[in-house]
Amino acid sequence: MAEYIVRPIGIVRTALKDPTDAPKQGALTGQEAEIVIDPAYLQALVGLARRVSPEGKASFGDSAHHNDGKIIVICWMHGADRDRLKVHPRDQEDRPERGVFSTRSPHRPNPLSLHAVTLLSIDRNVLRVRGMDAIDGTPVVDIKPHSPELDG
Amino acid sequence: MAEYIVRPIGIVRTALKDPTDAPKQGALTGQEAEIVIDPAYLQALVGLARRVSPEGKASFGDSAHHNDGKIIVICWMHGADRDRLKVHPRDQEDRPERGVFSTRSPHRPNPLSLHAVTLLSIDRNVLRVRGMDAIDGTPVVDIKPHSPELDG
Repeated sequence: MAEYIVRPIGIVRTALKDPTDAPKQGALTGQEAEIVIDPAYLQALVGLARRVSPEGKASFGDSAHHNDGKIIVICWMHGADRDRLKVHPRDQEDRPERGVFSTRSPHRPNPLSLHAVTLLSIDRNVLRVRGMDAIDGTPVVDIKPHSPELDG
Repeated sequence: MAEYIVRPIGIVRTALKDPTDAPKQGALTGQEAEIVIDPAYLQALVGLARRVSPEGKASFGDSAHHNDGKIIVICWMHGADRDRLKVHPRDQEDRPERGVFSTRSPHRPNPLSLHAVTLLSIDRNVLRVRGMDAIDGTPVVDIKPHSPELDG
């Protein structure tokens, strides 16, 4: 099958500097972070301000989907082991190994991670978000509006 | 920034043969499809059977996350235009253009698509799912368990 090239569109800036800092599924801890988008993609952000959480600025309805103030950030976990097909869930050695597709482990053939985060503000090419568990320097490869209907 | 190589792990098999067949956000129509995984990744599927929907087979609880019988399939929309930064939402020309990161358009710098689908059954390397709006032949690049907590 064909291969494809992923080109990062931005980077995560956060106080989480080390994988061991990142709580497993730290999304649940409300960690704040910045998503710094490459200015070359500034036009692709137009309209995203509508998704800013009511806690941030004004929130506007979307004709198609309810705006819950969330976006999905897709990252490329560049430190992952792409050859691992099985892992101990949450690195707990006493738990039996499972296939990586049945876990959210970073180790997987294509180390993509999904982060449904609350969008707090946008300042030009910098998005401030809450609920991000990626570590500092993680490449960002896509951003989408979150939809409770489609994703929930 | 560095570039990365995405290697498909499988392919979508479905009655939707043409992009114009695929209802916009057709996930909501309950379209059934098969996800055929490259047998090289068979070990990575171990444990996923626990996610089979109660409508399919038995469902088992997960110590960490509620099993809602759903998985997230990530595809690479190989027919997309990666240079488009703005689109008319849902291809409706009368709606003002918006940045692709504020839409679910297939046209985006890294044409990844997310599909939260119901897992109906697994037969060796073939997953049967409901709620899939990708067209036949779309490359699959990752599979994750869906978590209402993390993704909802």
